[in-house]
Amino acid sequence: MTTVAFLGLGAMGYPMAGHLAGQFETRVWNRTPEKAQQHAAQHGSQACADVAEAVRGAAVLFTCLPTSAEVDALADTVLGAASAGLVWVDCTSGEPAAARALAVRAAQAGVVFLDAPVSGGTSGADAGTLTVMVGGDAGALDGVRPTLAFAAKVVHVGPSGAGFAVKAINNALLAVNLWAAGEGLAALARAGVDVSAALQVINASSGRSNATENLIPQRVVTRAFPVTFKLGLLAKDAGIALRVVNDARASAPVLNAVEGLMRGAANAVGADEDHTAALKLIERLNDQEIR
Amino acid sequence: MTTVAFLGLGAMGYPMAGHLAGQFETRVWNRTPEKAQQHAAQHGSQACADVAEAVRGAAVLFTCLPTSAEVDALADTVLGAASAGLVWVDCTSGEPAAARALAVRAAQAGVVFLDAPVSGGTSGADAGTLTVMVGGDAGALDGVRPTLAFAAKVVHVGPSGAGFAVKAINNALLAVNLWAAGEGLAALARAGVDVSAALQVINASSGRSNATENLIPQRVVTRAFPVTFKLGLLAKDAGIALRVVNDARASAPVLNAVEGLMRGAANAVGADEDHTAALKLIERLNDQEIR
Amino acid sequence: MTTVAFLGLGAMGYPMAGHLAGQFETRVWNRTPEKAQQHAAQHGSQACADVAEAVRGAAVLFTCLPTSAEVDALADTVLGAASAGLVWVDCTSGEPAAARALAVRAAQAGVVFLDAPVSGGTSGADAGTLTVMVGGDAGALDGVRPTLAFAAKVVHVGPSGAGFAVKAINNALLAVNLWAAGEGLAALARAGVDVSAALQVINASSGRSNATENLIPQRVVTRAFPVTFKLGLLAKDAGIALRVVNDARASAPVLNAVEGLMRGAANAVGADEDHTAALKLIERLNDQEIR
Amino acid sequence: MTTVAFLGLGAMGYPMAGHLAGQFETRVWNRTPEKAQQHAAQHGSQACADVAEAVRGAAVLFTCLPTSAEVDALADTVLGAASAGLVWVDCTSGEPAAARALAVRAAQAGVVFLDAPVSGGTSGADAGTLTVMVGGDAGALDGVRPTLAFAAKVVHVGPSGAGFAVKAINNALLAVNLWAAGEGLAALARAGVDVSAALQVINASSGRSNATENLIPQRVVTRAFPVTFKLGLLAKDAGIALRVVNDARASAPVLNAVEGLMRGAANAVGADEDHTAALKLIERLNDQEIR
Repeated sequence: MTTVAFLGLGAMGYPMAGHLAGQFETRVWNRTPEKAQQHAAQHGSQACADVAEAVRGAAVLFTCLPTSAEVDALADTVLGAASAGLVWVDCTSGEPAAARALAVRAAQAGVVFLDAPVSGGTSGADAGTLTVMVGGDAGALDGVRPTLAFAAKVVHVGPSGAGFAVKAINNALLAVNLWAAGEGLAALARAGVDVSAALQVINASSGRSNATENLIPQRVVTRAFPVTFKLGLLAKDAGIALRVVNDARASAPVLNAVEGLMRGAANAVGADEDHTAALKLIERLNDQEIR
Repeated sequence: MTTVAFLGLGAMGYPMAGHLAGQFETRVWNRTPEKAQQHAAQHGSQACADVAEAVRGAAVLFTCLPTSAEVDALADTVLGAASAGLVWVDCTSGEPAAARALAVRAAQAGVVFLDAPVSGGTSGADAGTLTVMVGGDAGALDGVRPTLAFAAKVVHVGPSGAGFAVKAINNALLAVNLWAAGEGLAALARAGVDVSAALQVINASSGRSNATENLIPQRVVTRAFPVTFKLGLLAKDAGIALRVVNDARASAPVLNAVEGLMRGAANAVGADEDHTAALKLIERLNDQEIR
Repeated sequence: MTTVAFLGLGAMGYPMAGHLAGQFETRVWNRTPEKAQQHAAQHGSQACADVAEAVRGAAVLFTCLPTSAEVDALADTVLGAASAGLVWVDCTSGEPAAARALAVRAAQAGVVFLDAPVSGGTSGADAGTLTVMVGGDAGALDGVRPTLAFAAKVVHVGPSGAGFAVKAINNALLAVNLWAAGEGLAALARAGVDVSAALQVINASSGRSNATENLIPQRVVTRAFPVTFKLGLLAKDAGIALRVVNDARASAPVLNAVEGLMRGAANAVGADEDHTAALKLIERLNDQEIR
Repeated sequence: MTTVAFLGLGAMGYPMAGHLAGQFETRVWNRTPEKAQQHAAQHGSQACADVAEAVRGAAVLFTCLPTSAEVDALADTVLGAASAGLVWVDCTSGEPAAARALAVRAAQAGVVFLDAPVSGGTSGADAGTLTVMVGGDAGALDGVRPTLAFAAKVVHVGPSGAGFAVKAINNALLAVNLWAAGEGLAALARAGVDVSAALQVINASSGRSNATENLIPQRVVTRAFPVTFKLGLLAKDAGIALRVVNDARASAPVLNAVEGLMRGAANAVGADEDHTAALKLIERLNDQEIR
């Protein structure tokens, strides 16, 4: 039976590792060890006390951490403990430049590093229906596809870093679509238009997006703003997109501008609120609730 | 049998009036009369030589013209020929301020004016599945709902002008979502990522919108850019949204910025190209084709 | 001796009319009559109880009101009382479209309307060193140049509306230069750079503007924010610029975006604060004081 | 007599090193050696065939290269040849992060690294009236102030990297002020206003900046666009500012957006044109010459 390891049992990683535990011998590690013990009790995984113990002898390693900085901090330990031939699938929403650098270091240790961020949110992680966008060696990806038990869709998008780049751009588009819809609805509300009727129309029309179809009706109009993906992390991802654009000497004035507004929202509203709470900043700028 | 009139047989109006002609006694008028004669021959409507002839005795009047200016130019003739109790359903993508003014003038002539723009494009018009967003008297709308034979969904969104306002904001969101997706894909292409793979991922992820799901795969990546909705008209609608925002003293920096970029695209690429050809400007700014 | 009339004794109008009173027979009117009586006592002008009394028999009429709406509200009375040949010099920061319409109406009454907004602030008004930018008949302007006693520089910039258009664009540039400098200084402050040293360098370098040379050192860094030109009025002027751009089918994404931010600042910080208090919004977006 | 070395005799470095040669024993090096020989012949400096020869025994080292990448490429050679106590004054418009890293490496070799970019353009370099903004050890700066013979103003702005950060923000403000003025003048031109009259007014008003006072009248309205500072370098500097902002988790939507437009201008108009040729992109977006 294949042995896999999973490092990082946060809001996404915890259920992702749960899907693995049903099919593979799964070792889990978390910075706060209680989470790993809880996971072992709930899903039948093996809680490991340290990173090296989790990695030693595993055929596939998954990481799912807040940023590339946390991944880099574990790299020496991981590469020291890794068996030759380990495939490291990093599901963090990380930096393309960090992926390229880590892929080179990993190769020197006989390890294949794939940047493999996921999309679908906590509900997709619970259901095991995440989308995975993968950068790096396509053959290595094919070898580990059967272990991606948390995914409904796995797409190879390019060389090392390409997975992180696509994820960053996807999240930047989420940020733009969300922010623009907030602006439009706040203006309509000020003009005396019913926001729910406007959403109903937009969602049957050409201006619709995931933001108008799902996020705003479920989280903003209800005033619930449930914290499943933090505003500070969306601002971080928009910042990664900024660097993807800049490194490619590409021109993206709108993505750039919205990064600034998302960072402003995180600073003014709170980085630990749900990402949809960015619209609370729009509400202040318009002296108008969006409902 | 109810008598209806339809003024303006353009790319949208022609098929919309066709759905009416199947159910009602339908009079049609067009600035170039050949179109009206063709419509009569194809759909069994009555071609009228002038506006007054079409309007006289009709219970419901539909207009579908390029801008509010063309509607205003017909208003004296329409109101002079109208029977008391006429309901005027203006499906133009018009100006809220023009709707408010015309509703007042119409009321003085015993006519009810409803601003009732549509969404769904030429394919929705052909299929009779348009969405209609209506501003003005809700009771009058209920009275004419049975005659909206071209619509799958009819939503009352507020007082006079609200229909035009929602349409303008919807199209402004279309403009933003389209432009931002173009920026993101151009940057990814420059970074060596496969655009089709990126679209596949985004469309299974949180950054998806009508632009990434339909417009860009069907029109941009194929290089077809079929002209069903002109870039100049999208720029005009984004300009109406600008005035909706400004009249409400609302704050919408992103909608504003994208209006400027759409107008720039119309000036630089051509107002008569399809609206998705705005991405040809992004391609120049990035020295990179989006495919 | 030439008889002139001045309507609107606000922060700008009061000292402007004072310069006239020293050289001409000057009638003044203000919505709150106490200001007019105070002006008469201080400057030797004649306080008039109503607009018609002030205008009757005057050779030149000056107006200096908050917006074109207030000017339009007086137009019937002014044109009813005007002597043929009156030249009406409107120093309001008004709307080009309103100027074009009023110029036509005025001509029908034998009056020449010039849109003639001023720049230089309250200190320029006090010193009589304002810049006047004039749209409308150049010959009529030449005839009244000697009466523009409050100006150091008078420039004819084009046909009716051109004066208001240039003023709006000037103020939009002020808004952009001010906002961008605020962003840059907030970022530097967060990065540990001394703001005063940075301003010293910028003001000896290529990035300098009136905002960095005068406004920010005198009003923001000092935390004084003295109210000489209200934030709500700057937001209004940026909105006029938006319409100038849009009416000309011009592309100005940056001016557009900053209009949205200025309106957001007026809504969030307060329309009655000084225009430089827009940077208090930047401070919130950056969680960082600019000093 | 103090011995100084100067590496990089480009459009700025050549005249800067000329001012040094008048007062100090000055060794010069350039990637293409002909420039160094020409400098020796013209200014009495000593042309060196390689970097190590220039650096060995010098008390102060100046570098003035296109980007931090070129500086980093020389660092091993420089630090290998440096005498203990060397003060390295890097006048490149570089990256703050590169400065911080290089300052640490330099200190390990007994060298003090100061990031010391300049402002004032080629005319300031010719006249010896540049402004220098310096990050790093203030005491070391005081020790070398007498050798900054090309400067009229030297300001210490903070720790390592602060000089580059201030320079980047200054140039980002230049980019914003220039672009916004271009947008405003293009709109006015389309509206029938005389551009020169508008500039005359703006330059006596609150919207004025270095861009409206100097660059646009001298370079754009004249259609001369003389290449003294390349568009590609301004786009690069705006990109550095983007990273300054992002690293500080600051919010700067307008600086961000203009970076995208400048990069777009460099891609579409040409990176080797003068920076003011960014307005040629505005002219295309407006189908209107700015003159």
